[in-house]
Amino acid sequence: MRRASLFLSPGEISESMLPGHLLVAIDVLRASSTICQALVSGARDILPVAEIEEAKRLAESLGRENTLLCGEREGRIIPGFDLGNSPLEYTPDGVKDKTLVMCTTNGTALLARLGSGGEALIAGFVNAGTVTRYLLRSKDDVAIFCAGLLSQFSLEDAVCGGMLVAGLGGRGRRRKVSLSDGAVAGKLLYKRFAKNLLGMLQSTHHGAYLAGLGFGQDLEFASWTDSLPVLPVAREGRITLVKF
Amino acid sequence: MRRASLFLSPGEISESMLPGHLLVAIDVLRASSTICQALVSGARDILPVAEIEEAKRLAESLGRENTLLCGEREGRIIPGFDLGNSPLEYTPDGVKDKTLVMCTTNGTALLARLGSGGEALIAGFVNAGTVTRYLLRSKDDVAIFCAGLLSQFSLEDAVCGGMLVAGLGGRGRRRKVSLSDGAVAGKLLYKRFAKNLLGMLQSTHHGAYLAGLGFGQDLEFASWTDSLPVLPVAREGRITLVKF
Repeated sequence: MRRASLFLSPGEISESMLPGHLLVAIDVLRASSTICQALVSGARDILPVAEIEEAKRLAESLGRENTLLCGEREGRIIPGFDLGNSPLEYTPDGVKDKTLVMCTTNGTALLARLGSGGEALIAGFVNAGTVTRYLLRSKDDVAIFCAGLLSQFSLEDAVCGGMLVAGLGGRGRRRKVSLSDGAVAGKLLYKRFAKNLLGMLQSTHHGAYLAGLGFGQDLEFASWTDSLPVLPVAREGRITLVKF
Repeated sequence: MRRASLFLSPGEISESMLPGHLLVAIDVLRASSTICQALVSGARDILPVAEIEEAKRLAESLGRENTLLCGEREGRIIPGFDLGNSPLEYTPDGVKDKTLVMCTTNGTALLARLGSGGEALIAGFVNAGTVTRYLLRSKDDVAIFCAGLLSQFSLEDAVCGGMLVAGLGGRGRRRKVSLSDGAVAGKLLYKRFAKNLLGMLQSTHHGAYLAGLGFGQDLEFASWTDSLPVLPVAREGRITLVKF
């Protein structure tokens, strides 16, 4: 039977669990939304890195003409960087045909850790339906990783993971999926909040913090289910869109 | 306002979060149940350790006459040890007036990590009401830690943590408690499973594994809410009962 595992915080990851699974990385606030938006706006590719100095070195080595330095610490743009981590910044005018070197506290750090496992899909509410349809084309086991917040559980990532889990075992599909404890929990949390994702986002620790910084619109953006029906995949340190 | 945090897996712990909180450690299957049962059966004290060799050295240094070596790996008694990790083994005949050096995969490893934070209460369903009453006597912030399973989320610990969280903000008590994302999630999971804790335990990854090893009765034991109304506290590497 197909298995679906949902890892609710980054401390649950061990390298041994990655091979043989379809991997999905979730950072609802805000890297998932921002990555989808950037690629829809025509960014050439996105290079996720964990550390600021690494981002600067990589951007320097690529030449700054067609490269943008992007990312945040404590929710705010990193000093000297071109863009922060608000999806609203990633307009076609700003990012079309550019390579984005991106360094966020939770999301790109997670992607850097998953790198050894081959390719990882990137999911948020904005593209959850597209990710689910892609996962349903395969029978491989699925491992979904929540970026969380500073190594801790964040409700919004768990709810989004639960949305994907719920989609894998949908009604009338004759699909049986064996769920990990985390997947059971995520699915229940999703069902609790499905009708008011924006309210849920506003209630979370991370959501309230970002709203306090003036990023309330980013919560709305992140709550729009299937607004960006694209499939970003991180592969060998590079995120691009997969067509399917 | 009083804050309650629930940490759903051990990777979420950082040393900086421990000071100034009432700490609670949860390992429903089975260390919490076993520790409560052992102390009710008259064990003198319990010394939790993380590693097998450390347990052996400690027991040797204490003299083996009044010391028992207790613990499990992969659910089974450690070879050469006196007792495993089934609460049913901890009868007065076996443990009265003894010091138990205890080494379990998840529970005592968690207690060893929390050691630097002062004292930690030990909670399972068997003593959840007693722990809640103790927590309600104070106004300090509460931090509840789930032992999980091999560094990963386990549903039964989250549900038990949620039971404690729910008890802190009970109806009609005029108590306002600010909940972390993990506490919100745990409380919702508890409400979902409150009416059938045994069924929940049997459905979890760890519960099904233990039942497969022949420890089905331990799940029943662990599900009996408030059956052992005691308050074990780990303090300076030693677990004893607190009277209050």
